Amino acid sequence: MLTASICGDVFASPPVDSILAGIRAVTGPMGCLLIVTNYTGDRLNFGLAAEQARSEGYKIETVIVGDDCALPPPRGIAGRRGLAGTILVNKVAGAAAAAGLSLADVTSEAKRASEMVGTMGVALSVCTLPGQVTSDRLGPGKMELGLGIHGEPGAAVADLQPVDVVVSHVLKQILSPETNYVPITRGNRVVLMINGLGATPMMELMIAAGKTVPKLQLEFGLAVERVYTGSFMTSLDMAGFSISIMKADQTILQRLDALTTAPHWPVGSAGNRPPAKIPVPLPPSRVTKSEESLCRPVQLSERGRILEVAIEAAVNAVIGMRDSLNDWDSKVGDGDCGSTMYRGATAILDDMKKYYPLNDAAETVNEIGSSVRRAMGGTSGVLYNIFCKAAYARLKANSDSIVTAKQWAEALEAAIAAVSKYGGASAGYRTLLDALIPALAVLKERLTAGDDSSTAFVLSSEAALAGAESTKHMQAQAGWSSYVSANILATVPDPGAMAAAVWYNAAALAVKDKYQAS
Amino acid sequence: MLTASICGDVFASPPVDSILAGIRAVTGPMGCLLIVTNYTGDRLNFGLAAEQARSEGYKIETVIVGDDCALPPPRGIAGRRGLAGTILVNKVAGAAAAAGLSLADVTSEAKRASEMVGTMGVALSVCTLPGQVTSDRLGPGKMELGLGIHGEPGAAVADLQPVDVVVSHVLKQILSPETNYVPITRGNRVVLMINGLGATPMMELMIAAGKTVPKLQLEFGLAVERVYTGSFMTSLDMAGFSISIMKADQTILQRLDALTTAPHWPVGSAGNRPPAKIPVPLPPSRVTKSEESLCRPVQLSERGRILEVAIEAAVNAVIGMRDSLNDWDSKVGDGDCGSTMYRGATAILDDMKKYYPLNDAAETVNEIGSSVRRAMGGTSGVLYNIFCKAAYARLKANSDSIVTAKQWAEALEAAIAAVSKYGGASAGYRTLLDALIPALAVLKERLTAGDDSSTAFVLSSEAALAGAESTKHMQAQAGWSSYVSANILATVPDPGAMAAAVWYNAAALAVKDKYQAS
Repeated sequence: MLTASICGDVFASPPVDSILAGIRAVTGPMGCLLIVTNYTGDRLNFGLAAEQARSEGYKIETVIVGDDCALPPPRGIAGRRGLAGTILVNKVAGAAAAAGLSLADVTSEAKRASEMVGTMGVALSVCTLPGQVTSDRLGPGKMELGLGIHGEPGAAVADLQPVDVVVSHVLKQILSPETNYVPITRGNRVVLMINGLGATPMMELMIAAGKTVPKLQLEFGLAVERVYTGSFMTSLDMAGFSISIMKADQTILQRLDALTTAPHWPVGSAGNRPPAKIPVPLPPSRVTKSEESLCRPVQLSERGRILEVAIEAAVNAVIGMRDSLNDWDSKVGDGDCGSTMYRGATAILDDMKKYYPLNDAAETVNEIGSSVRRAMGGTSGVLYNIFCKAAYARLKANSDSIVTAKQWAEALEAAIAAVSKYGGASAGYRTLLDALIPALAVLKERLTAGDDSSTAFVLSSEAALAGAESTKHMQAQAGWSSYVSANILATVPDPGAMAAAVWYNAAALAVKDKYQAS
Repeated sequence: MLTASICGDVFASPPVDSILAGIRAVTGPMGCLLIVTNYTGDRLNFGLAAEQARSEGYKIETVIVGDDCALPPPRGIAGRRGLAGTILVNKVAGAAAAAGLSLADVTSEAKRASEMVGTMGVALSVCTLPGQVTSDRLGPGKMELGLGIHGEPGAAVADLQPVDVVVSHVLKQILSPETNYVPITRGNRVVLMINGLGATPMMELMIAAGKTVPKLQLEFGLAVERVYTGSFMTSLDMAGFSISIMKADQTILQRLDALTTAPHWPVGSAGNRPPAKIPVPLPPSRVTKSEESLCRPVQLSERGRILEVAIEAAVNAVIGMRDSLNDWDSKVGDGDCGSTMYRGATAILDDMKKYYPLNDAAETVNEIGSSVRRAMGGTSGVLYNIFCKAAYARLKANSDSIVTAKQWAEALEAAIAAVSKYGGASAGYRTLLDALIPALAVLKERLTAGDDSSTAFVLSSEAALAGAESTKHMQAQAGWSSYVSANILATVPDPGAMAAAVWYNAAALAVKDKYQAS
């Protein structure tokens, strides 16, 4: 955008010698365009440097930018300060120069751009001058309209207003047909710059941009070709923003769109496109499922009956453990583990009677997850839901509708992996995984060894109980218990691990009973 | 960088249904990678949404980013929050996906990037929660080290320290070999991100970046391949910044350098290049000028003698006007016009005797400008310097060493144009131009009409005096007088205009006398 930028002291124009040094450092045979903001000090110092450089043989042109629209025209030339519109002029000039234009043509494009842009700002705080006590001229609940960027007072002080009121006021002022500061009328194409003054968060600038674009479109009848939002011309740590509007034709847009290596020039987003509404696909509808997966089957299959018995046994075991779980949890956590698990268990019992499609094991597991999510809440509700969803996804991946013991083991493995990943815990972290991980290991081992399914499940569930017991000797790594001392932790097992071991054990025993009975 | 971003309420994880809607909206046949910051709520909600989406048939992978280096490892998995390093992971993943990689490969690049980056932040203010009273937990003169981005307290509170002390502390923490959070050792290549927390001005972030780069290079022996400075991951209007360091290889650099349409991804500047020192050409040396242009000539030429007489008359007239000028200026300005002009005039008299190369008119005019610049100061000093420099540049453009009356007129025209442009005034603005512009008009007219030079100059100077008188009826448009009422302005002429008319008139009369005498 610029080949050189000449800094002065804070809020002071750079000295002539600095400007001259800059000109001498970067000016080649094509010459040099100085873009100067309209402040007396800048105009004079850059002017003197330009004349000096010219007398040394350099080709120099100058464009002075005064885009301020805060003050009425009678105030004279002193009134129109150079504000953030200067950045747009810089971009146009830089791209024109990069395109290889002559100094005269670059100057004329920059001058034209400077005549097409108007700016006005609003400040919500006074900036901090390094080493000085910050002025308290702006009281709480007040804002300054028509600010300058050098800490000078704004044109007017007003009560804080909602952002759309502020934006309306600023746009009226910039586009006022009375002052006629910028030659913009209905039907014109414009670009918009929302400029933060230093300490305004991007989110707030985006809110201002979001209010400005539709007003320009609907109230002023303008096509907003580009929107640039960011902190481009700042006033130290001042809070507030300015709005710049530039009349845009194809040449100006081409210059603004040209690539630049300036690190903070943003990609201009088009203001004319309404925010894209992306159609969100509906989830796979329940209607597409088979009839029996929608509700409790009239006739339970053999496997459906076994599944029902297992679930019943599991949730009843949890219900029976409520007080013990609460008691343990009151020592190492927030004391509601039993109550939370109880809520989930009773919800499963109720829902199962109403609509669990028990002949389809995968869908039933999925419904258990949904019951848990509705009833349990909290971290354990989400974790059990993740557990069920992961198991469901794995079970669904089987083409066969009959779930083998090996497939149950794989589903348990997927469920454990998901809980570990999203819960962030592993073996030894004193969580329900310390019951389930040993259970899975034994289950896989026994099935590989050729044990019958129900025996393998019972042996596996004994490993779960032993694992839950072993949590007494573990230091907590996640959740509430990680704040509790090892002495206290040693007196109780992790209630979550114990609950998991208990329901798993109850289900395994019930399945074994059922098989032996049949 | 990202196809979708899912927002929750302020500082809350988004609900599962929002995440699911986002997944359903953007996921194509290639699948979807979720990049999740390591907070319990985010992990669980994104995890559940991922499992749900998977069970709906979508291909989903998840990478969890925990780049925080503020807390020692014993604090466990809960301690490593996702901070600004996540943005670098987003960029790597986005570029990998845009390059057409499979979901598995994109996931593995993102995961690898997440393991290469460490972050730590420092907050200087607590953020403002919309609708809530801002916490005053951070007193004045204090800062929080090891902040989170959700308004939670930092790891430690300390007294405010200079930025290089803060940077040293943060770098030691991130690169600590004890915690070994990031696998970065001497000789490695890294990229650096200096991230503002919302209300930190870019200038302060640049200062932090400027302190960080040499420390990484010299103290830690690292090659800083890229530096990204800006506000990328913010915490509302919190003041402060975080430093992220990512180990970089060619693949990561290629992903970071890939073009993106994300509006605020900056061009990464290379940290390894020391700031370029551009040799500033010296001004054309005085030694190259001819001997007689260096000092007062031993023998004055005819024209040199006339120039001396004219200058002497002009400055003596200004010296004689001191009190009147001050008097007028006290009514319409700051009262020092006479004193300022007097300082310039006496400096010209002194310098002329010492070294003005009077036989070379152009160089003499240039030296007058330098005398004025040294002695006068203020706006009028700069404007008269601009006046002389512009005249000098025009006079120098003549190949002939003898300056004709027409060339003097052209020099006056160039000088007036420069003063008007950089001073911002035109005819009728109640400035020195209101003396000089009519003088130029008459001079050109008389010369065109064929008058002899000295007569033309005298007539022109009478127009200058009349013009200066006419300023009484003008409303001021620039400078101090623009704040004074018309009633008062009508009683006095503009002192600057009167001073210009008086010196011009005195010079013209002296030249005419000299010609008539010779």
